[in-house]
Amino acid sequence: VWVKHENHQPVGAFKVRGGLNYVAQLSAKERQAGLFTASTGNHGQSIAYASQVNGLKATIAVPEGANPDKVAAMQGLGAHLVFHGPDFDAAREWVMAEAEAQQGCFVGPTEARLIAGVGTYALEIVEDLPEVETIIVPVGAGSGACGVSIVAKTINPNIEVIAVQSAQAPAMQLSWQSGKLVRAPMATFAEGIATRVPFENTQRIMRHYLDDFVLVDDRAIKEAILLLLSHTHNLAEGAGAAALAAALQLKARLAGRKVVLVLSGGNLALDNLRTMLAE
Amino acid sequence: VWVKHENHQPVGAFKVRGGLNYVAQLSAKERQAGLFTASTGNHGQSIAYASQVNGLKATIAVPEGANPDKVAAMQGLGAHLVFHGPDFDAAREWVMAEAEAQQGCFVGPTEARLIAGVGTYALEIVEDLPEVETIIVPVGAGSGACGVSIVAKTINPNIEVIAVQSAQAPAMQLSWQSGKLVRAPMATFAEGIATRVPFENTQRIMRHYLDDFVLVDDRAIKEAILLLLSHTHNLAEGAGAAALAAALQLKARLAGRKVVLVLSGGNLALDNLRTMLAE
Repeated sequence: VWVKHENHQPVGAFKVRGGLNYVAQLSAKERQAGLFTASTGNHGQSIAYASQVNGLKATIAVPEGANPDKVAAMQGLGAHLVFHGPDFDAAREWVMAEAEAQQGCFVGPTEARLIAGVGTYALEIVEDLPEVETIIVPVGAGSGACGVSIVAKTINPNIEVIAVQSAQAPAMQLSWQSGKLVRAPMATFAEGIATRVPFENTQRIMRHYLDDFVLVDDRAIKEAILLLLSHTHNLAEGAGAAALAAALQLKARLAGRKVVLVLSGGNLALDNLRTMLAE
Repeated sequence: VWVKHENHQPVGAFKVRGGLNYVAQLSAKERQAGLFTASTGNHGQSIAYASQVNGLKATIAVPEGANPDKVAAMQGLGAHLVFHGPDFDAAREWVMAEAEAQQGCFVGPTEARLIAGVGTYALEIVEDLPEVETIIVPVGAGSGACGVSIVAKTINPNIEVIAVQSAQAPAMQLSWQSGKLVRAPMATFAEGIATRVPFENTQRIMRHYLDDFVLVDDRAIKEAILLLLSHTHNLAEGAGAAALAAALQLKARLAGRKVVLVLSGGNLALDNLRTMLAE
């Protein structure tokens, strides 16, 4: 088993690759109006970081009660934050209207240029470990799973790509499995994979490329966080530990295979860790 | 402030650089007998790792009650472990006799070839950040502080090097300050800087090169571990967080300076972290 450490990126998550690629491809006119997005944290940090690096304004809607580490990080990167609604989808609806009113670019979390950017980490996996047989990747909006599966399957169609989501927020998995867009209850602690409303464009790509899409319980994700911390001394957020939780669940099936776990991000709030360690 | 991340090295600590350099310079005859050392953890992991990579036998004496993560890591690297005595110094006395009986190489933690090896991280600091003004480095046996100060001062005598030890294990600091070899009580939780009996050769080098040597309270080190975890999402062991604790203590004096903190290692046992988070 190998771990792809996206937790050591600037902003602490793979998403930074998407934001940088997105801004790099904007025209001067598009840059002027600034970027608008909604985020539970990592996508927003990516947009805030890319905006700061390139001198753009960034307006980010975050759900009330968002991970305070990620909120502080987005503010530290100079973004204008607006708290709106109880979850990602509510914040997104509000900021889309705001972007239209201000004639700015709304950057949805599944934009093609974001997927292309994050796909670069899959290229690094296949270049560094050409013999990889299975890659397990967590799904929030799906940009990571799409980037990984497009890149890996294009280079070597025999590479198996398995997506993972929390059983406490299965909208993307249920949609993938049924072939329809299915909303589902969202109660996971892992905000990076907490999707209530599925995304059509990433679903389309995932239906074409993914070999499997599994659900793991939040409890298993928390155990995986503690395993990664004690054995590798890396702090993973919930989404970042989901691939390890999936690998443990699929242990028999993966036996003997060369498996890469995508540790997508490390932005776990200390209070969450304190609670997990006390449980 | 910059952080030098030695916590992401193989074995999770800067010491790996010393072991690799040491073994690389042994003759074929010296390699045959294998290596003998004593360690509370990181030095032993370095010797075990270098031995495994180069196909040598390694016998390591560890104090009873040693950090279980580090013990498991040394065993995982194929070393033969012998538990002996209540602390590093007791384990060391036993294994030195054992090495002599078996005609093997005893590798003390302050060997010149170890210091030369670990000094490579100081070279990286000065190469990556030539404008560095102060480097703060934790002291256990002193190989890190010696490597840093020899390299940094040789390249640029104006770089200030400040060493740090726990107030609950001040033997090296008291010896440096008084110019004599002074034993002192050892009660720190941070085993990487838990020295009871000072080392003469590192003291000699430190007296020549170090600008200052400060003590920080264990409480401040624990706060620094939590600060690093919440703000950078890096897990530091006690020794690894001591430089941050020192920088906070010296805040007024360091204001406006370009400071590098050596995060020497990340091998903190989960039980220790659990206790700190609960306190």
